[in-house]
Amino acid sequence: MSTHARRKDTAQQTGQAPKVLGLPVGISASGIRRETDSMGAIDVPADRYWGAQTQRSLIHFAIGEDRMPNEVYHAYGFVKKAAAIVNGRGSRLPAWKADLIAQVADEVISGALDKHFPLYVWQTGSGTQSNMNVNEVVSNRAIQLVGGTLGSKVPVHPNDHVNMSQSSNDTFVTAMHIAAVRFIHDRLLPELHRLHEMISAKSRTWHDVVKIGRTHLQDAVPLSVGQEWSGYAAQLHDASERIRVTLPGLYELAIGGTAVGTGLNTPDGFGEAVAAEIASATGYPFKTASNPFAAQGSLDAMVAASAGLRAAAIPLMKFANDVRWLASGPRCGLAELNLPPNEPGSSIMPGKVNPTQCEAMVMVCIQVLGEDTAVAFAGSQGNFELNAMRPIVINNFLHSARILADACEKLRTFCVEGTEVNRKQTSAYLDHSLMLVTALSPKIGYDKASKIAHKANNEGTTLRKAALASGYISAEDFDRIVDPQRMARIDS
Amino acid sequence: MSTHARRKDTAQQTGQAPKVLGLPVGISASGIRRETDSMGAIDVPADRYWGAQTQRSLIHFAIGEDRMPNEVYHAYGFVKKAAAIVNGRGSRLPAWKADLIAQVADEVISGALDKHFPLYVWQTGSGTQSNMNVNEVVSNRAIQLVGGTLGSKVPVHPNDHVNMSQSSNDTFVTAMHIAAVRFIHDRLLPELHRLHEMISAKSRTWHDVVKIGRTHLQDAVPLSVGQEWSGYAAQLHDASERIRVTLPGLYELAIGGTAVGTGLNTPDGFGEAVAAEIASATGYPFKTASNPFAAQGSLDAMVAASAGLRAAAIPLMKFANDVRWLASGPRCGLAELNLPPNEPGSSIMPGKVNPTQCEAMVMVCIQVLGEDTAVAFAGSQGNFELNAMRPIVINNFLHSARILADACEKLRTFCVEGTEVNRKQTSAYLDHSLMLVTALSPKIGYDKASKIAHKANNEGTTLRKAALASGYISAEDFDRIVDPQRMARIDS
Amino acid sequence: MSTHARRKDTAQQTGQAPKVLGLPVGISASGIRRETDSMGAIDVPADRYWGAQTQRSLIHFAIGEDRMPNEVYHAYGFVKKAAAIVNGRGSRLPAWKADLIAQVADEVISGALDKHFPLYVWQTGSGTQSNMNVNEVVSNRAIQLVGGTLGSKVPVHPNDHVNMSQSSNDTFVTAMHIAAVRFIHDRLLPELHRLHEMISAKSRTWHDVVKIGRTHLQDAVPLSVGQEWSGYAAQLHDASERIRVTLPGLYELAIGGTAVGTGLNTPDGFGEAVAAEIASATGYPFKTASNPFAAQGSLDAMVAASAGLRAAAIPLMKFANDVRWLASGPRCGLAELNLPPNEPGSSIMPGKVNPTQCEAMVMVCIQVLGEDTAVAFAGSQGNFELNAMRPIVINNFLHSARILADACEKLRTFCVEGTEVNRKQTSAYLDHSLMLVTALSPKIGYDKASKIAHKANNEGTTLRKAALASGYISAEDFDRIVDPQRMARIDS
Amino acid sequence: MSTHARRKDTAQQTGQAPKVLGLPVGISASGIRRETDSMGAIDVPADRYWGAQTQRSLIHFAIGEDRMPNEVYHAYGFVKKAAAIVNGRGSRLPAWKADLIAQVADEVISGALDKHFPLYVWQTGSGTQSNMNVNEVVSNRAIQLVGGTLGSKVPVHPNDHVNMSQSSNDTFVTAMHIAAVRFIHDRLLPELHRLHEMISAKSRTWHDVVKIGRTHLQDAVPLSVGQEWSGYAAQLHDASERIRVTLPGLYELAIGGTAVGTGLNTPDGFGEAVAAEIASATGYPFKTASNPFAAQGSLDAMVAASAGLRAAAIPLMKFANDVRWLASGPRCGLAELNLPPNEPGSSIMPGKVNPTQCEAMVMVCIQVLGEDTAVAFAGSQGNFELNAMRPIVINNFLHSARILADACEKLRTFCVEGTEVNRKQTSAYLDHSLMLVTALSPKIGYDKASKIAHKANNEGTTLRKAALASGYISAEDFDRIVDPQRMARIDS
Repeated sequence: MSTHARRKDTAQQTGQAPKVLGLPVGISASGIRRETDSMGAIDVPADRYWGAQTQRSLIHFAIGEDRMPNEVYHAYGFVKKAAAIVNGRGSRLPAWKADLIAQVADEVISGALDKHFPLYVWQTGSGTQSNMNVNEVVSNRAIQLVGGTLGSKVPVHPNDHVNMSQSSNDTFVTAMHIAAVRFIHDRLLPELHRLHEMISAKSRTWHDVVKIGRTHLQDAVPLSVGQEWSGYAAQLHDASERIRVTLPGLYELAIGGTAVGTGLNTPDGFGEAVAAEIASATGYPFKTASNPFAAQGSLDAMVAASAGLRAAAIPLMKFANDVRWLASGPRCGLAELNLPPNEPGSSIMPGKVNPTQCEAMVMVCIQVLGEDTAVAFAGSQGNFELNAMRPIVINNFLHSARILADACEKLRTFCVEGTEVNRKQTSAYLDHSLMLVTALSPKIGYDKASKIAHKANNEGTTLRKAALASGYISAEDFDRIVDPQRMARIDS
Repeated sequence: MSTHARRKDTAQQTGQAPKVLGLPVGISASGIRRETDSMGAIDVPADRYWGAQTQRSLIHFAIGEDRMPNEVYHAYGFVKKAAAIVNGRGSRLPAWKADLIAQVADEVISGALDKHFPLYVWQTGSGTQSNMNVNEVVSNRAIQLVGGTLGSKVPVHPNDHVNMSQSSNDTFVTAMHIAAVRFIHDRLLPELHRLHEMISAKSRTWHDVVKIGRTHLQDAVPLSVGQEWSGYAAQLHDASERIRVTLPGLYELAIGGTAVGTGLNTPDGFGEAVAAEIASATGYPFKTASNPFAAQGSLDAMVAASAGLRAAAIPLMKFANDVRWLASGPRCGLAELNLPPNEPGSSIMPGKVNPTQCEAMVMVCIQVLGEDTAVAFAGSQGNFELNAMRPIVINNFLHSARILADACEKLRTFCVEGTEVNRKQTSAYLDHSLMLVTALSPKIGYDKASKIAHKANNEGTTLRKAALASGYISAEDFDRIVDPQRMARIDS
Repeated sequence: MSTHARRKDTAQQTGQAPKVLGLPVGISASGIRRETDSMGAIDVPADRYWGAQTQRSLIHFAIGEDRMPNEVYHAYGFVKKAAAIVNGRGSRLPAWKADLIAQVADEVISGALDKHFPLYVWQTGSGTQSNMNVNEVVSNRAIQLVGGTLGSKVPVHPNDHVNMSQSSNDTFVTAMHIAAVRFIHDRLLPELHRLHEMISAKSRTWHDVVKIGRTHLQDAVPLSVGQEWSGYAAQLHDASERIRVTLPGLYELAIGGTAVGTGLNTPDGFGEAVAAEIASATGYPFKTASNPFAAQGSLDAMVAASAGLRAAAIPLMKFANDVRWLASGPRCGLAELNLPPNEPGSSIMPGKVNPTQCEAMVMVCIQVLGEDTAVAFAGSQGNFELNAMRPIVINNFLHSARILADACEKLRTFCVEGTEVNRKQTSAYLDHSLMLVTALSPKIGYDKASKIAHKANNEGTTLRKAALASGYISAEDFDRIVDPQRMARIDS
Repeated sequence: MSTHARRKDTAQQTGQAPKVLGLPVGISASGIRRETDSMGAIDVPADRYWGAQTQRSLIHFAIGEDRMPNEVYHAYGFVKKAAAIVNGRGSRLPAWKADLIAQVADEVISGALDKHFPLYVWQTGSGTQSNMNVNEVVSNRAIQLVGGTLGSKVPVHPNDHVNMSQSSNDTFVTAMHIAAVRFIHDRLLPELHRLHEMISAKSRTWHDVVKIGRTHLQDAVPLSVGQEWSGYAAQLHDASERIRVTLPGLYELAIGGTAVGTGLNTPDGFGEAVAAEIASATGYPFKTASNPFAAQGSLDAMVAASAGLRAAAIPLMKFANDVRWLASGPRCGLAELNLPPNEPGSSIMPGKVNPTQCEAMVMVCIQVLGEDTAVAFAGSQGNFELNAMRPIVINNFLHSARILADACEKLRTFCVEGTEVNRKQTSAYLDHSLMLVTALSPKIGYDKASKIAHKANNEGTTLRKAALASGYISAEDFDRIVDPQRMARIDS
C-alpha cells in the first residue's frame, strides 16, 4: 500500500468513505489508457478495466485461441469477496473498501465482467497473470464506482487491497478447486444423473425382453435387454460415485498459505475465515487444506478429480459403443436396436442413418482420456513450493467436464430417449443361438454339452435337433431346461 | 460330468469317499502325458499338472515373456476353495470332493503350485485359459491325491467340479479384485506408509531449519525444511487415501454371475455365499457386486484402482525430483541436501555420486503413468456382456503396484534415511535472497517493496542495503520485519 | 440430381448459362429461412448460407465450444473447386456451373465464408456434417450469385453438384490432409526454423564460453555454452525432419474413393485428376492414395503426423526446462542465464521475475503429448471401411500444431532473443567443480583420480589442492591437463 | 589405470603378452568373492563374473522383476569390441589386450554371458550400472582367460581398459540404438512382412468375393473381401515404412562423446572409427551422431522409433478388431468370417469358440500404446547434458517390439492363415442391403434415391421392390445399374 493510499485509507476509516455510484458495468471510452506496474507504463484499451499486467500477458502469451475459462474468474470472484470481507472484519481494510471490493467481486461472480478477462491459458504456470487480471479489474471497477481515476490504483490498489493477504500461489489453486467443484455439482453430476435415469427407465421398460448375450463378441447365454441396460445404469451410477469421492480433496483450499504455504503476510486464522466465507457463499463445505505446502506444491487433488472424469468417460464409451453396435445394420448388422434418425447420414448414400450421437460421445470420451493424460503429466511436474502447471490442468479439467456433460445431455435427448428394441430381431437370435446348450451342462456335463453344440454348428442345425439326436437328453428335459426366459433369471 | 464320473460320485456320496494320500506337490514322471479337451488330445509335460487347454494356450500365445502374475493364481485359489465349500454345503458336490478341492486350493493359495501356472498374459481376453489352467491343475492334483489317473478328469473334473457354478467371466475378474486388494494391503500401502513415516521423521528433525523457498524455480520467501518435507509427507498420506477409496469398488466381486451375469447354472445365493467365504478367508470385506452385468461387462473398478496407483506415482515423482534437484551439485548446483552415496556414479568421471534412487523412482512413476494409460484404454474397450481386456489390466495393475512398492522401499532405505541438510548452504541462500522483501510489503506497499528488490538485484547488493538506501524503511524496522525465522512462521 | 435440375442443366448447357452477379458475400435478411433435406424442413437463420443438415447438426451436437477449425473448411474449398473443375472438364457438370462452384470455392478458401461454418467438433465421426455444411453453403452462395432462391437447391444442388462424384468418406479425410499439410508448411515448420535459427545464433555467440556440464543434475566435465546450445539447435532441426518425413503420408489423398474406397459414382481417373488440381492449387505434391481402402478405413497418416508434432514437443520441452533451470535464482539457483523480465512475476513477492515463457512452452508441450495420445487412441478405433474418429483427430492435430507454432514464436521473441549468459557465474562454477578430475584419469587411472575427487569433496578444498596433496600428479602436469578450455575441445 | 597395471602393460607390450587359455565360460567356484570399487569392498557370488558395482546395483535396485533386456548387453558387446579394436589400433591398448577384450566381447554378443548381467531396469537413469556390469564381466572373464585373479582388475581393468575412451553417457545410448536397430531388422520387420504377405495372399484369394461395405457400422455400398483385405495389407505395409523412416535416427550413435559430448579423454576420430567398426560388425550403416550434445542430452531418436512401433500397433489393432467383428456369431453376429478354432472358448459354455488371437493382439497393441506414452514422457525429462531416463525407454521399446512381433507371428499362424469367408453370409447380406441405392443417385438424384431407401426400410421390403414402386426408375435400368459386382469395381 502506498503512503498516499494509506493516508487516504486512514482518513476514510475515520468516516470519509466515498459515495459508491450506481454505475452499470462498462467504460464509455475509446482508444487507449495508460496503466502501470513495476515494469513501467503500457497502453490498454480504454474500454477495458484491466491494467498493465493483463496487457503484458495478452501480448506475451498470444498462443492459440485457448482462453482461461470464465469459470475460473467466477471462482476468483468468490475468493476476492471472501478475502475482502475477512480483511474488513479484521480492520486491515476499512469497511467501505471491503464492501466495495465485495460488491465488485459479486459482479465478477455473476459473469458481468467476463469480457474483461481475456487472458490465454498458456501463460505463467502459477496463474499469476489471471490473478492480477482479477485484481486489476476489481481495482479499476471499484475506482470507477467511487469516481476515481482508472489506473490510479487509488483508493483500491490491485495488490495492496484486492490481493491483500493473498498470493497467486494460494488463490489460483483455490479458484481452481472452487471452479471444479461448482462445475461438477452444477453441470456434470446432474447430466450424468439424467442420463442414468433415462437408461434406468429403458432398463425397466425392457426388463423382460430376453435376448442373446454376447461375450468375446460371440453368442453366449441369454439375458434380458433390461438386465443389459441395468449394467449400463450401474456403471454410470458408480462413475458418479467415483467423481464424488474426489470432492473432499477439492474442498480443501490452499487459501491462507500466500507465497509458499507459510501464510506470510496474513493474520492468524485468515485462511480458515476465508474458506468459511467461500463455503457459505457457494454452499459447498470448503475448508483450508490440511497441509498448505502440499496444497500449493502439488495439484494432486485436481489430478484425482480428473481421474473422476475418466471414470465417467470409460463407461460412457462402453455404452456408446454397445449402442452403436447393437444398432448396426439395418440389414447387415446386429440390428437389435433402432436409434432415432436425426439427420441424413451420408452425402453420397441416400437414406443412410448413422449412430452419430454415439460417435460424438466416443470421441468426447477419447478426448477426456487424452486430456486426463495431460493433467496427470502436468501434475507430476511440480517443483519445490509450487506446481507451476496450473492453467493446463484447470483448462483441461473444465473442458473435459463440459464436453462430457454436454455429450451426456445430447446423447440422452437425441439418442437414448428415442431408442427402441427390435424385438423381431432379438427373438430371431434367441431361436438360432447355440449357447443355450449351457443350461444342459449341469445335467449332462460340460463334455457332452460341448459335443452337442459343435454338432449343431457343424451341421447348421438347431440346438434342439442336435441335442435330441445326441441321445444325451430327452425332448421333455430339453424343453424344460433350455428356456431362455428362465435362463435369464428375470425377476417376474 | 461324464456318466462314469457321475456314477462314481453317486457311489462316493453314499459313503465311499476315497482316501486322500499325503503326497507332496510334484509329479515324478518325465516325458509327456496325453490330456484331452473338447478339441481333442494333446501332449503335455508329464511332470506338470496342467491339462489340454493350458497346453494349447502355451503354444498359441507364446508372446513375449510376460506371464500371468502368480498373485492372480493365488487369488484364484481363494475362489476355487470358496466355491467348493459352498457347493459342498449345498450338496452339489459330495463333501469329500469339496474338501479335496479346498485342500488343493490351499496349495494354490500358498504358492506351492506356482510352476504349474505357466500361461502368458497375452491370451484370451476373458482370462478363460488361466481359469482352465487352475481348473486343470486342481483337477489333476486332486486326482493324484486320491490315487487316480492324471488326465482322466475322474473323480474331479476341471469343468464340472472345480469350475462348478462358475464361469471364467465371473471368476477371473473376481480373482483380479482379490489379487489387487491383497497386493494393496500387503505391500503397497505398508511401503507408502513406511516412506511417509520416514519423511515425516525427517520433517520433524528439520522443523526449524529455515531455508529459502522456491516458486517457478526462482527464489521466494522462506520456509523451514521441515515444512517443505511436511508437504511431501502430506502428499503421500493423501495418496494412500486416494488408493483406499478405490478399495470398496474392488471389494465387489462378480462371482455368481457366471457367463453373462444372470447366474445361469448357479443355485440361489451362490455368489453371496462364495463372497462371504472369500471375505472370511482373506480378511477383507468382499461381497457380491451390486450389479452383476456391470461387474462382468466392465473393468471400471480396476481402472479406478489404477488411478489410485497414479495418485501415488505423482507425488512420489515430485518428491524424487525435488530431492535430486535439492541435492544437485556438489559445487555447481543447489546443494541443499546431501544424499548417501551408494555407488560410484560414473564410469568415466571419478568420484561422481548421482541421485540414482531418485532417478529409479522417477522412471518407475513414469512407467506407472504409462501403464495406467493402457489400463484406462483397455477399460474402455469392453463389448456387451464382457470386457475382454482383463489380462492386460491385471498385469499392468500388479506390475505398477509392485514397482511402486519396491521403489518406495529402496528410496526410503537407500536414500531418504541417509539424507542430510547442508545447513551451511541453506543459511547462505537465506542471507543472499532478495525475496525477503515481501515481508515489507504490508508496511510500505507492493510498489515500493518492488523497487527495493529490483535495486538490490541490479546493483548486486543485499536487500538490507538497498532497503535502507531507499529511505522507505528504517534499519530498526527492517531488522524487526525481515526475519526469516519469523517469516517462516515455524511453530516453536 | 432431380429431374428438374437436370432439365435446367441441359437447357443451360446449350447456352443458357445464367449471369453471375457481382454480389459481395453476405445475405441481407433477418429472421429465419426454411431449408430442407431428406429428413424434412427446418428453419435456419436467414443471414446464413447453410442449409438443413448444418442446422440439424448445430442443434444435435452443441457440445462444448469446440468448433471444427476453419483450416478444414479452407481445405475443403480446394476439394470442392478441384472436383468442380474435373467434373466440368468431364462434362458431368455444365461449364458455367463448374465455374460457379469453383468461384464460390475460392471464397471458401479465402476465409470469406468462415462464419457460415459453425459446426462443432463433436459431431458425426465421418465429418459428413461439415462436408454437407460446405456443400450447402456453396450451393446457396452459388444460387445467390445467379439470382436464384436460397434453399431451392436449384441450379446448384449441394449433393448432386457440389458433392458430385464425392462422399464425405473420401473428401473429409482429403481435407484433413490438405489442412494439415498447409499448416505444417505455413506455420509450424517456419516457426520451428526461426526458433532454431535464434538458438543457433546464440550458440555461435557463446561458442567459447566454457561452463561446467551437468549429468544427473550433478556437476560433470566442462563444455561451452555454445556447445550446449548447439545441442538444442540440433534437436530442433531433427524434430523438423521428423515432421517432414510424415508429409509423404499426408500427400496421399483419399479423393476418388467415395463411400467405401471403390470409387462408386466416379468416372475413371477422377481421384487422380482432382488430386492433381489440388496439387496445382496448393503447390504441394498431393496425389491419390496408393490404397483407397486403407486411406478411408484408417487415419494412420494423421497419427504419424501427430507423432511428428510430438517429436517437436519433446525437445522443446527439454529446452524450455533447461533454460528455466539455468536461469533459476537469482541468488539461490543455478543463475547461469539471465532471462528478459517481461512482467512482474508475483502478486505478493515484489520484484520477482519468473521464467514464464518457458512455463508456457512446457505446458504447451504437455498438452501436445496429451492430444497426441487422444489422436493415437482415435486412430485405433476404426471399423471396416471407415475410421469414424476424424473430427477429434484433425481438431487435435491442428490445435497442437498451432499452439506449438505460437509458443515457438513467443518463446523466441520474448525469451530466447533477450537471454544472456551470466559469465561471472559460469566462471565461478568452473573454478569450484571437482569433475575436472576426469582429465587426469587417462594419466593416473580412474581409481586414483576418484580418490582425489573424494578427498577434495570431503575436505571442502579445491581439486588442485587435493590433487597435489595426493602425490599422484605434479603441479605442472595438473595445470597442463586440467584446463577447462581444452577439456571442452572447442574449435578455436 | 593403476601404476601396477601400467607397468605390467608396458612389460606385456614389449612382447610378454600372456597366453590366452581356452577356458569355457563359467567359474567353478561356490560361495562368495570379494570385489572392490571406489566405495570399498563387497561380496559377490563366486560363480559370477560381475564385480562390486554390479553387486551394489543388485542390492540397491531390486525393484520388481524387470531386468535390463539381454539385447542391450549383446549390443554392448559390439561397443566394447569396437572400442577395443580402435584403442588397440591406436596403441592406447596393447594389441593382445585389445584382442582379449574383443574376444570376450564376442562372448557377450553371442549371449554366452547372459546370466552374468542380472541388473534391474529401474537403476541409474544413465545406464551406468549396466555399462559397469559389462565392464566388470569383460574384465573378469578376460582375467580368467589369462590366468589372473578375479577381482584384481589386472591385467584388464574395467574402467581403464574395457571402458577406455568411453563413458556410460555415450555408450549406453549407443547400445540402445544398436539393440533397437537389430531387433527391428531381425524380428519386427520380418514378422510384419510375413503377416502382410499372408493378408495379401488372402486378399488375392478373395479378390472377387463381393460383400457389403460398412461405414459407421452401418450398411454401405459393396466392395470385395479382397479389396477390404488389400486395405489391411496396405496399412501394414505403410506401418513398416513408418518404422523404417525412424532407422536413420537410430543409426546415429553417441559414441565418442564420452561424459558430456565433448569427447573428453578420447583421441581424435575415435567415435567415427568405433561407429565404423560397429557398422561393419552388425551390417547396419551406423555412424556418429551429427551433434553429440543432442545425442546424449536427448532420447529423441528412440522416441521417434517408439512412434514407429505405435504406427504398427494402430493398424494391427484395427485389423484384429475388424476380424473379430466380422467373425462374430456364429448365429447372432456378422458371421462373415470363420476363424480356426484353437481352443475351447469357455469354461462354462460348451462348444464356444472365441477370437482369442485377435483379443491377444488388441491387448498387445494397447500395451504398446501405453508403453509408447511412457517413452514419450521419459523422452521429455532430460536435463542439461543427459537424459537420465534411458533404461525405461529401451526396456519399453524392446518389450513393445517383441510383443508386437510375437503377436504378429501368432495371429498369422493361428488365425489369419486358417480364416475362411462365409460366402453364404456375404451373399445374403448383399441381397438385403439397401445402400445399393447409391448407384441410382447419379441417375435420379440424391433426393429421390433417398426416398426409395427410406421406403424400403420402413416397409421392410427389398430395394428393388421399393425402387420400382417409386416410379423413378425402370426395372431394366435398376438391374443394369444396381449390380454389386460392378459397383465394387473389381478388376476382372
